[in-house]
Amino acid sequence: MRYSVDVNCDMGESFGAYTLGIDHEVIKYISSSNIACGFHASDPDVMAKTVELCKKHHVMAGAHPGYPDLLGFGRRYMDMVEQELLHCIIYQVGALKGFLDYFGLPLQHVKLHGALYNYLVNDERLSISIASAIQKAFGDVIFLTLGTNRTSKLKENCKKQGIRLALEAFPDRNYTDDGELLSRRHEEAVLKDHEKIAQRATRMVKEKGIPSINGKWLEMDIDTLCIHGDNAESIEAAKMIHNFVAKEGIEIKPLCEIV
Amino acid sequence: MRYSVDVNCDMGESFGAYTLGIDHEVIKYISSSNIACGFHASDPDVMAKTVELCKKHHVMAGAHPGYPDLLGFGRRYMDMVEQELLHCIIYQVGALKGFLDYFGLPLQHVKLHGALYNYLVNDERLSISIASAIQKAFGDVIFLTLGTNRTSKLKENCKKQGIRLALEAFPDRNYTDDGELLSRRHEEAVLKDHEKIAQRATRMVKEKGIPSINGKWLEMDIDTLCIHGDNAESIEAAKMIHNFVAKEGIEIKPLCEIV
Amino acid sequence: MRYSVDVNCDMGESFGAYTLGIDHEVIKYISSSNIACGFHASDPDVMAKTVELCKKHHVMAGAHPGYPDLLGFGRRYMDMVEQELLHCIIYQVGALKGFLDYFGLPLQHVKLHGALYNYLVNDERLSISIASAIQKAFGDVIFLTLGTNRTSKLKENCKKQGIRLALEAFPDRNYTDDGELLSRRHEEAVLKDHEKIAQRATRMVKEKGIPSINGKWLEMDIDTLCIHGDNAESIEAAKMIHNFVAKEGIEIKPLCEIV
Amino acid sequence: MRYSVDVNCDMGESFGAYTLGIDHEVIKYISSSNIACGFHASDPDVMAKTVELCKKHHVMAGAHPGYPDLLGFGRRYMDMVEQELLHCIIYQVGALKGFLDYFGLPLQHVKLHGALYNYLVNDERLSISIASAIQKAFGDVIFLTLGTNRTSKLKENCKKQGIRLALEAFPDRNYTDDGELLSRRHEEAVLKDHEKIAQRATRMVKEKGIPSINGKWLEMDIDTLCIHGDNAESIEAAKMIHNFVAKEGIEIKPLCEIV
Repeated sequence: MRYSVDVNCDMGESFGAYTLGIDHEVIKYISSSNIACGFHASDPDVMAKTVELCKKHHVMAGAHPGYPDLLGFGRRYMDMVEQELLHCIIYQVGALKGFLDYFGLPLQHVKLHGALYNYLVNDERLSISIASAIQKAFGDVIFLTLGTNRTSKLKENCKKQGIRLALEAFPDRNYTDDGELLSRRHEEAVLKDHEKIAQRATRMVKEKGIPSINGKWLEMDIDTLCIHGDNAESIEAAKMIHNFVAKEGIEIKPLCEIV
Repeated sequence: MRYSVDVNCDMGESFGAYTLGIDHEVIKYISSSNIACGFHASDPDVMAKTVELCKKHHVMAGAHPGYPDLLGFGRRYMDMVEQELLHCIIYQVGALKGFLDYFGLPLQHVKLHGALYNYLVNDERLSISIASAIQKAFGDVIFLTLGTNRTSKLKENCKKQGIRLALEAFPDRNYTDDGELLSRRHEEAVLKDHEKIAQRATRMVKEKGIPSINGKWLEMDIDTLCIHGDNAESIEAAKMIHNFVAKEGIEIKPLCEIV
Repeated sequence: MRYSVDVNCDMGESFGAYTLGIDHEVIKYISSSNIACGFHASDPDVMAKTVELCKKHHVMAGAHPGYPDLLGFGRRYMDMVEQELLHCIIYQVGALKGFLDYFGLPLQHVKLHGALYNYLVNDERLSISIASAIQKAFGDVIFLTLGTNRTSKLKENCKKQGIRLALEAFPDRNYTDDGELLSRRHEEAVLKDHEKIAQRATRMVKEKGIPSINGKWLEMDIDTLCIHGDNAESIEAAKMIHNFVAKEGIEIKPLCEIV
Repeated sequence: MRYSVDVNCDMGESFGAYTLGIDHEVIKYISSSNIACGFHASDPDVMAKTVELCKKHHVMAGAHPGYPDLLGFGRRYMDMVEQELLHCIIYQVGALKGFLDYFGLPLQHVKLHGALYNYLVNDERLSISIASAIQKAFGDVIFLTLGTNRTSKLKENCKKQGIRLALEAFPDRNYTDDGELLSRRHEEAVLKDHEKIAQRATRMVKEKGIPSINGKWLEMDIDTLCIHGDNAESIEAAKMIHNFVAKEGIEIKPLCEIV
């Protein structure tokens, strides 16, 4: 049997005079890129540049919309009703699609950012509603969200409604026994050992699961691994994941060839 | 001979708790709508609502991007280089197109707003460059700009390059002998008499010209008349133009059927 | 016995090209003005104009800081930690104080806006902490918040710590049996009958209480009545409150002469 | 004879998740700090942190207001009228003063940022008008601007009107024969050799002048040297200036003790 997985990373988070992330390095190790759309990060110049970078490296592009909160980097929950959320998402995805159209790339997926991502992870009905609206506007676009032990049913529900859902896992994060990400408030939330992270990444793909922080086995049928390009450390981890995955005979393919 | 003209109006300029313009009234008298895109005015909710309004009234939709200056309503010149301008425009047009795609309407045209409009009116090379980039990203979209006695050549140049350009006139504005809009700093810049405005509108279409403020005849082969929906006064003027034009046998048709 | 009360109103909520509120009318009927500070509404020009208006009408000025959410007009809860809130408040109050210093007016009070106001109404410890920090920065400034049947103890606690607290009531709002504002989701949340509103206003001052929507008597020792200047209707109500209060021998005095 | 000079640096230019400048390093080598105020850079948390840093290092604090253009980092000219500029400046200086008052520091000076700085350098009347308005609002505050061979007269005019003006020079910049900064478009605009920069700094102070790029002697009676803390390179230059200046017996004193 042959294994394959997508590797995704948040990108294009710089803004004006401010630089964030080492996009030109991390792009070498991924197959899908989540591009910030100007509400929580990024600006029109950064978006253009990021789309060009994807084009150059043959990486598939996705929109990464967030709350309208640049100051809080989209990490603060905002009390918005469904219509407001929907319109904020359409606006941002549309804006990115403008650049994709300009440079001749397709829109592969949409992945929400930060507090908005977390909010929808915990609201299955809203997730499906938003994913469906995105599809209505932008065609056969994949909706990328967190894989947990609750999401297999969500994926099934989406399939029934003709919505392409993709699930991601975080090899550098510890999981609770309930199959959720251990909160960043815990000291052990994020793993630091690159080799261990890379081993977890391959295990997630080949064994379709991962042990929780307490050693409980969590089944997780995920489509894509989320990695990071924030700093030199995360670039090292990205490289090691890339090497491990290759050594284990796992093919890295863009999300659109997986789901 | 049968006459026809488009009538366009800026719309969707409300923002959050702030309302601007009587869109649901003026929409009855127009065939093309210029929809603000969130940089100088509007927000995602307003854009959704405005696109729905266009759909309901069978009015063609265009994007109305401006400088990133909500505080100044896009009326203040900002020193931006061509790339910055281009990316700001792609971003905004893309965002609007998201809503048009969601509601199933085509993007008919792009008309720049305020100080950005004025800046490009005076830079033919940049106008063509931007119009061409818009077409590259969004397909066969019309670029709408000011008709003056200098623009006939611009229109020709655009045609050669496969760019659809449309020219507009302002029936409620006085023109200089050079065929330019009399600056708003002059007391006589804006006409107040609705009947006179409506007469000028019909004359612009049937006689393909208008007398300057000093009585000099200005040839102007325009495609669309720009009217306003800011207040009760301008709604009255819009209604009267509508009636005069009908009485004179001029058909109001969307821009896409004219150029 | 002689009665007195302050009358306060939110003002200066316009922004750029957008006008909100009939400030130049409602200012005739108030003694204290809550001036928006540019985060949820207002801008530097509007703030300057509003401070000048207060000066002309001998109305005392207060700062009205809100969440950094112009799009949501500060009405949406945002998940911010105490330090973030404190710094947002110091920033906004300081900005207003710049204009007060420029025009030679004192800063009388601080009243939070919208969702931030509601958030602190429900957190006594945080209210005292913020009020104390404001006093540390800006001197002997009054902190204005909602009077409910729970606030008498809050007022006492503040006094012990040397903090001037003022409590307000809304004559145009119905109250629950628990002495809280009936949520705007209820049809009967806001009273429309100007005479009834004016009667409630005088009763609040003279009888130090008001009946709940179910007729239960609520004791409320309030210092100031909050009225509105949003539209012609609220100006009418403001005028009637003003007349009723005068007829009943209640003196309208600024907050600084009350608490 | 004993020499003394102030050393100033722009600080507090981070924003939300974005970090800019190595403030905690460069602060060791300066006596006056120009703190961004949230329009072109910074936010309430960053301002609080920067004021605390100044307090810890006994560095005098000044406001560094810019155009309302976070995206352009205040480096793009915006067409604003005098009243708009004045109100934007009062707003920002007031906001910073809020933090200074909270932490118990005085406001020493105001230095405009970026394109706004450049705009006023070229308009003497406007400079005096703004400096005078700042003084009206914030008391005996120093207005810091560029020293050129045209500014001696400006300084005199200010003194006559009771305005404290301070002039700065850039030891790392080349000057034209006209005593102006060589535009950054020129390759030789910025000097890279730290030792040469430090030598120029001491020469500016002791010889009250500097040779232009073509060797012409430029008289410049400056009060303060502007250095940078953007990156490791500029920290090295700052350190070397600091050492050279000490070795040459020049005392570094805050601006308020110089003008």
